[in-house]
Amino acid sequence: MTERHPQERETRYPVQVELAVAWGEMDALGHVNNVVYFRYFESARIAYFSRLGASFSPAGPIVASASCDFLAPLAYPDTLRVGVGVTRVGTTSFTMRYELTSRARGLVAARGRTVCVWYDYALGAKARLPDPLRVRLDELEDSA
Amino acid sequence: MTERHPQERETRYPVQVELAVAWGEMDALGHVNNVVYFRYFESARIAYFSRLGASFSPAGPIVASASCDFLAPLAYPDTLRVGVGVTRVGTTSFTMRYELTSRARGLVAARGRTVCVWYDYALGAKARLPDPLRVRLDELEDSA
Amino acid sequence: MTERHPQERETRYPVQVELAVAWGEMDALGHVNNVVYFRYFESARIAYFSRLGASFSPAGPIVASASCDFLAPLAYPDTLRVGVGVTRVGTTSFTMRYELTSRARGLVAARGRTVCVWYDYALGAKARLPDPLRVRLDELEDSA
Amino acid sequence: MTERHPQERETRYPVQVELAVAWGEMDALGHVNNVVYFRYFESARIAYFSRLGASFSPAGPIVASASCDFLAPLAYPDTLRVGVGVTRVGTTSFTMRYELTSRARGLVAARGRTVCVWYDYALGAKARLPDPLRVRLDELEDSA
Repeated sequence: MTERHPQERETRYPVQVELAVAWGEMDALGHVNNVVYFRYFESARIAYFSRLGASFSPAGPIVASASCDFLAPLAYPDTLRVGVGVTRVGTTSFTMRYELTSRARGLVAARGRTVCVWYDYALGAKARLPDPLRVRLDELEDSA
Repeated sequence: MTERHPQERETRYPVQVELAVAWGEMDALGHVNNVVYFRYFESARIAYFSRLGASFSPAGPIVASASCDFLAPLAYPDTLRVGVGVTRVGTTSFTMRYELTSRARGLVAARGRTVCVWYDYALGAKARLPDPLRVRLDELEDSA
Repeated sequence: MTERHPQERETRYPVQVELAVAWGEMDALGHVNNVVYFRYFESARIAYFSRLGASFSPAGPIVASASCDFLAPLAYPDTLRVGVGVTRVGTTSFTMRYELTSRARGLVAARGRTVCVWYDYALGAKARLPDPLRVRLDELEDSA
Repeated sequence: MTERHPQERETRYPVQVELAVAWGEMDALGHVNNVVYFRYFESARIAYFSRLGASFSPAGPIVASASCDFLAPLAYPDTLRVGVGVTRVGTTSFTMRYELTSRARGLVAARGRTVCVWYDYALGAKARLPDPLRVRLDELEDSA
């Protein structure tokens, strides 16, 4: 799941969020539950979208697929840094990469990927990424 | 938190939902996390509202307060039954009671209460409970 | 649910935690789901216990009841401050109070309470609060 | 993410779980949040492990990677069926596939995959899958 798609550029993380692990995010095995990593990625993704400043109406991104490689277990207490970047911009979709670093453990604990499809809610169908969004994506990525 | 308010009638549970405990709802102590009990109550409350068949527009119920007495720990695997009923109907609010039974343990594991205020979203203020809603609440409670 | 128990002292919040609202904590009504407030309280409670520095073995606190008054809706993005303090120390239990403030809205959005029972896991029964814990609780509360 | 690994057999789902969508699992967009799909898969995986009847001590499975293709949105109310099967058994890991069907919509709403590594907790290292586990995995898969 970590191979690079031919059109993808090198992964950079222009947007970073810092998140505190909540005690209640641990499961019966005493580690942060696997599911919660995707919540962490979501928080980073939303922050990225916010930085994009794009209008998500009448069309916007929907997550078509998501994946995560769990590299190290996490536990409370810890502070996480999640970096997020866009590594591929297609006609109707783009790929985002995530890297989650544990401050307590001093290591990368997970890497992830989502493919977001640009979806026209009114039409109920995927749509071409608007040119201003492409420009803004490039600007944000180049700022990394 | 279990004392009866003078206007309250005896607790009956005209609506019942059955819920499976998910493994991931357990926390690091190996029991269902306290927070999840309120999710169980919410599921019962939504089922009750659905049975009411009331229109929640332009006004509807918002939860003003919630409480739970945790009587016994829960763990996966288990199937829960949550009974819910309305024990007090006021001018602009009503009180709901919950009782959560564990099939695996054969006991009542929690009791809860929420006060729901009837809220007019357009006006941004609480509103008088509509008479048809009162009638429907009585019918549903009398069916228990 | 906000009345003061005769033995309770005035509410102070010697421990404070700061929490970021996650986008995914909002429900279909577009506000932070009621259930999540109890997760916020839990995070504050765990921080309090950590500050206590008490040994929770072979006995420790279990939550016997929890309640919340929802005073204002919350939404992403926001940063919350949750204050937590102990307002009553009994023979085998103590009461914690919570106050949740929204930075975005500049108001108190919720107040809560939990009763924690001191529980001996080996004996499977509630136990007398150890004297060193009482001393430590007093110290922490007096530091407010 | 849906390509077949050379050693993988055709996907079958010998274990099925039925799950009710909870209202509170929907996010601010009015659909079941993407993160929750991984919780559904987890519930199916735990049921599969339970059916295996294997001893998970001193070694057991840990999730090394997880992915999901989101094919259709979900909403409350709905009842889901999640099928789960093992499609590849390696030396120290195995691959599980998931298919999530919505009863309300009458379609496959998601497909997923996890790679589970057999991990020796005492040694802190991955370990060879025990032969009895391989036999039991084959039996369970052949029962499909």
